[in-house]
Amino acid sequence: MKTYLRTVNYYETDKMGVVHHSNYIRYFEEARTYFMEQVGYPYERLEREGIMSPVIGISCEYKKPVHYPDTVAIDVHLVSMGKFRCAFRYEVRDAATGELRAVGSSQHCYLDGKGGIVNLERVNPAFLAAFAPECEGEGK
Amino acid sequence: MKTYLRTVNYYETDKMGVVHHSNYIRYFEEARTYFMEQVGYPYERLEREGIMSPVIGISCEYKKPVHYPDTVAIDVHLVSMGKFRCAFRYEVRDAATGELRAVGSSQHCYLDGKGGIVNLERVNPAFLAAFAPECEGEGK
Amino acid sequence: MKTYLRTVNYYETDKMGVVHHSNYIRYFEEARTYFMEQVGYPYERLEREGIMSPVIGISCEYKKPVHYPDTVAIDVHLVSMGKFRCAFRYEVRDAATGELRAVGSSQHCYLDGKGGIVNLERVNPAFLAAFAPECEGEGK
Amino acid sequence: MKTYLRTVNYYETDKMGVVHHSNYIRYFEEARTYFMEQVGYPYERLEREGIMSPVIGISCEYKKPVHYPDTVAIDVHLVSMGKFRCAFRYEVRDAATGELRAVGSSQHCYLDGKGGIVNLERVNPAFLAAFAPECEGEGK
Repeated sequence: MKTYLRTVNYYETDKMGVVHHSNYIRYFEEARTYFMEQVGYPYERLEREGIMSPVIGISCEYKKPVHYPDTVAIDVHLVSMGKFRCAFRYEVRDAATGELRAVGSSQHCYLDGKGGIVNLERVNPAFLAAFAPECEGEGK
Repeated sequence: MKTYLRTVNYYETDKMGVVHHSNYIRYFEEARTYFMEQVGYPYERLEREGIMSPVIGISCEYKKPVHYPDTVAIDVHLVSMGKFRCAFRYEVRDAATGELRAVGSSQHCYLDGKGGIVNLERVNPAFLAAFAPECEGEGK
Repeated sequence: MKTYLRTVNYYETDKMGVVHHSNYIRYFEEARTYFMEQVGYPYERLEREGIMSPVIGISCEYKKPVHYPDTVAIDVHLVSMGKFRCAFRYEVRDAATGELRAVGSSQHCYLDGKGGIVNLERVNPAFLAAFAPECEGEGK
Repeated sequence: MKTYLRTVNYYETDKMGVVHHSNYIRYFEEARTYFMEQVGYPYERLEREGIMSPVIGISCEYKKPVHYPDTVAIDVHLVSMGKFRCAFRYEVRDAATGELRAVGSSQHCYLDGKGGIVNLERVNPAFLAAFAPECEGEGK
């Protein structure tokens, strides 16, 4: 999988002079989206098929600040892919030096249009089949 | 109409040490929402009735910066209310000193669930009736 | 400690129709700020005294979605307060029903103006003294 | 000047199902930053030289909504460049179809580190010289 490159924006900094910590959670979403595109099953296809995949858990450890206008390089790992849930891990590095900036994780479930929990094995096995080869952990 | 009071958040500042200009546009939305609540016709009622009112124009002139953790006092004026469009004006002051921080405006139209333009006089005259007494300009 | 009440904004929702998960991290900051004010040692005082306290870790578990224009009630707990680090825990409930929406945590360190790690026991014992009575865990 | 291409993010949409209007103001900043890089005088160089250039006015007219995950193509025009102020104009189009999505403008002044107004002709003529060839209006 290709690394997601993202130059930080001025409006993402705060008065501490660095990127505000909440924005990393948004960068994770961007990087995850990029990962899904590369797999060939972009997130919008899932929504078109009537399934939403909300975030049910998120975490981030901040190692070093990111300054404007640094570019970060985010590696995404699919660490579990099950019929009810999946999980990703993220490594954020400075694109120029490779130095670690943050690590994080996210967990997701699947919902139908009414907000009910969905078993992807029954409703959308093609999704599971597309991501299985990329999964580094359980559910592979 | 009561003034909308809003203490700015740390995450709304940028590395210049002041509130980022894009956030004023969001404060306008908050102040407009508060205005509608006071009229007794909150925005969510309009959406429940199947009508969306997107912003079709926005402007802001920035007079003095706002610092964390200042509280701003925003006065909202309904300057026109027509069957196809309405417009608001905003004055942002420092709540402690009354000094002007910014002035702005927004224009809105009305859409049905399919994104088609709606004539409120036919579809929702109650909305027009509720806001007419507060309108300082045309359409009163 | 008083509960922090926050009505969610339209601009904080996403196309799933609920508050985007990244905004909870910002609500935590707002609630933490409110907690510090109640202790009588607001965050801006710490910055005025030359100390920054960046977030070094964050987590959130999302239980139920929050819809516009719900009000959430956030309880903040200071779970550890040490000379090098402190940690908070957050419970986000629906203000109307009391139903749990999310739980989260944050960890923080202390830095001087040059970004160097600071021992608050030496540099700012008044801060530790102010927060110690509120600490529910280590460092009390 | 090359057009700035930007794929919109999920977290930039709102419950109306489209990109929230406040984000266009942030896209303008991104596009302006890209414009300055192409001129060879990136914004961070100006800040390194001790000059900030805050936004003193902003406007946007919204023509058609932008949906996730559309890519927008933003053309930036430097419409005036004076010793005290400069102004930009923006055209936001759908990158795939070329259809207009929004037009906007921004005005900027120059400040020194203490927030005092700066005459760039005296303090930083190199900046004016770099941008003059790109200026389509006054101050050329």
